[in-house]
Order: sequence, then structure tokens, then C-alpha cells
Amino acid sequence: MKELHNHICKFIDLNDAEFEAVASYFERVSLRKKDIIYRAGDKTLDHYFVINGCMHMYFINDRGTEQTIQFAIKDWWITDYLAFQHKTVSEFYIQAVESSDVLRISRQKQEELLKRFPKMETYFRTIYQIAYGAALMRMKYIFDYSKEEIYFKFRDAFPDFVNNVPQYLVATYLGLSPEYVSKLRRKGTS
Amino acid sequence: MKELHNHICKFIDLNDAEFEAVASYFERVSLRKKDIIYRAGDKTLDHYFVINGCMHMYFINDRGTEQTIQFAIKDWWITDYLAFQHKTVSEFYIQAVESSDVLRISRQKQEELLKRFPKMETYFRTIYQIAYGAALMRMKYIFDYSKEEIYFKFRDAFPDFVNNVPQYLVATYLGLSPEYVSKLRRKGTS
Repeated sequence: MKELHNHICKFIDLNDAEFEAVASYFERVSLRKKDIIYRAGDKTLDHYFVINGCMHMYFINDRGTEQTIQFAIKDWWITDYLAFQHKTVSEFYIQAVESSDVLRISRQKQEELLKRFPKMETYFRTIYQIAYGAALMRMKYIFDYSKEEIYFKFRDAFPDFVNNVPQYLVATYLGLSPEYVSKLRRKGTS
Repeated sequence: MKELHNHICKFIDLNDAEFEAVASYFERVSLRKKDIIYRAGDKTLDHYFVINGCMHMYFINDRGTEQTIQFAIKDWWITDYLAFQHKTVSEFYIQAVESSDVLRISRQKQEELLKRFPKMETYFRTIYQIAYGAALMRMKYIFDYSKEEIYFKFRDAFPDFVNNVPQYLVATYLGLSPEYVSKLRRKGTS
């Protein structure tokens, strides 16, 4: 679990003995591509830290297609935070986009962890502050740029991501149709 | 400043003596309608808690119009969290939509506050967790609903808000054009 320890140490000091105790609150889960770790309506919603691979959170829209709301690659956390906070079920699905290893912590365990290690509050406060700021910035991108600009700007900012994730997911994440993105890609490479 | 004390006490215990010390980190600012408290590029970006009134954060797009990214009404916090975290200037403006009273805390003061009162970490961690969750949910609304649905769903969920805020702001917040919203309103009342 050294990936999590390294990530925590970017924000707070946590020695090996402390991390050993922190690690005991987590369970490691290996997922194959397309495995669903949370299904809309399931009673137990956990919080996931991605060690490697790629996860996404999505819902199924009226037209029956998956709409990606959030991605998580290495060192990112993912869950439905409103449902996690309010202890309700979620209307989202959380799924492995490719084979992935994640650390899972339950709501109750996370509460216990924060009680026992108050400095982990600083870690999560910082993580959430950045994630919230990034969500507002994504909103700016979606509002500010034309459909074509947003795709190319996103591709320039995250080339590895765009090249390694199925294009229909990148499309829905950016609020574009998969058909539109594949047209852009043909144009971009011609 | 009892509004802030009440809000903090929704999430953590903080007695009167402690709150008195916490309050000393804040400065109260009264704003008239349209007053701008942060202007894109300003060096000093603070964090704002709204006591009453309504603030919004926006940018000016290519067409020279204001695009609202976030609102804050009573008991909400607002700033550009990425810039606040990374100690950079912001490309956003933060402005009073109507006359408002806010509490302002600087980056440095907030750091000092969190060091002195570690339990305030729990307060901000919870606030950010909810705000991030709500931002993901707003993304779902924007992706999931037709232009018409999103306006009426938002109006049904927050009637006071929609009726008290200028319609062009509600429109840009939802990613709609002001003309489109005024057409919908005429339709809705006819």
C-alpha cells in the first residue's frame, strides 16, 4: 500500500508506524476491466483510492447510455461524495475502465480513522479542496470552450489519459457525443 | 458573527470561548450590489463566508459576457479553491449579486486557524466534501436534462433562489443563454 502512504506524505507527515495503523482500515481489491464495484442503489457505498488502472463513476441516462461524471486514475479518490456524506444510497455506478487495483474504506471505517488520526482530516480536507476546485474548473471548460476546443484542450492537457481510455468515455466526460469525438479524431489525424 | 458559529456547530462542537478566538481570524465586509471583492489577477485571494445576501464567482468569456461558475448564498463558502490551494492568482471574479455581508479570511490566516484549532479541519473537510459532491451532482444535471428540464428542475428545487436572483445569472449558471431562459419563463407563466 506504499502508493497511499506516498500520496498522504505529499500533504502531511505520517511515519511508517502510523501508516501501518492507517493501512489496517483499508482493504485492497483487484478489479478486472468492466468490473462494477458499486451499483446504483446498493446499500454499501465505500470510498476508493486508485493504486493503478482507471475507475469511473457514471449514471445511465434516459437514452440508456452511460454518462461518465468522474474519472479516477492513479492516486485519485472516487465515490459519490453527497451519498457518502449523507449515508444514503447513490444513483451512480462505479466501475473499472481497465483492470485496476484499488483500496477500499467504508464510511464507518473512515470515520473511525479520522477520530483516531486527526491529522488525516488535514489530508482529506486538502484532497477535497483540490477536487472541488478542479470540478469548478472543469465547469469553466465546459461553459467556456466550443465542443472542438474542449476536446483538443483536454487532449493536450492529459495526452496519456486520452490515449489510454476508451474514446466514448472521454466523450461523455466532456459532455460530447462519442460520434462527435470520433469525427474530431479523424479530422485531427488527417 | 453568530451565523458562522451556528454553521460550524452543525458539524463540530465549538464553545463560545473557542469561537471567540476563531472569529478573530475573520474580517466582516459589507458589500453593495455589484461590488467586486476579488478581480481576476488580483494578488490577494481570500476565502469568503456569506452571512446574508448572495455572491457569485464568474469569468468573462470570449464573447465578453459574464459566465457564473458558482453561487454562494447564506451559510455558503466561496472562492477559487484551486488558486486558493496553490497560492496562485485566479482568473475568476467574485462579486456581490445583491447587497451582502460576508466574512473574509486570508489564506495565511486560514492556515494559522487550522493549526491552532485542528478540529476546524473537520469542519472544512466536511464543507468541502459536500461542496465537491454537489458539484458532481450539478454536472449530472447539466448532462442529464434537456435545457428546458434543467431550468424547471432547478426552479422547483430552489424556488426562493430562482425568484430572487437576476435571471441572466441563473441562466449562465445552468449553461443556458439568458434569452432562452426568458423565453422559458414567458412560456411557464402563460
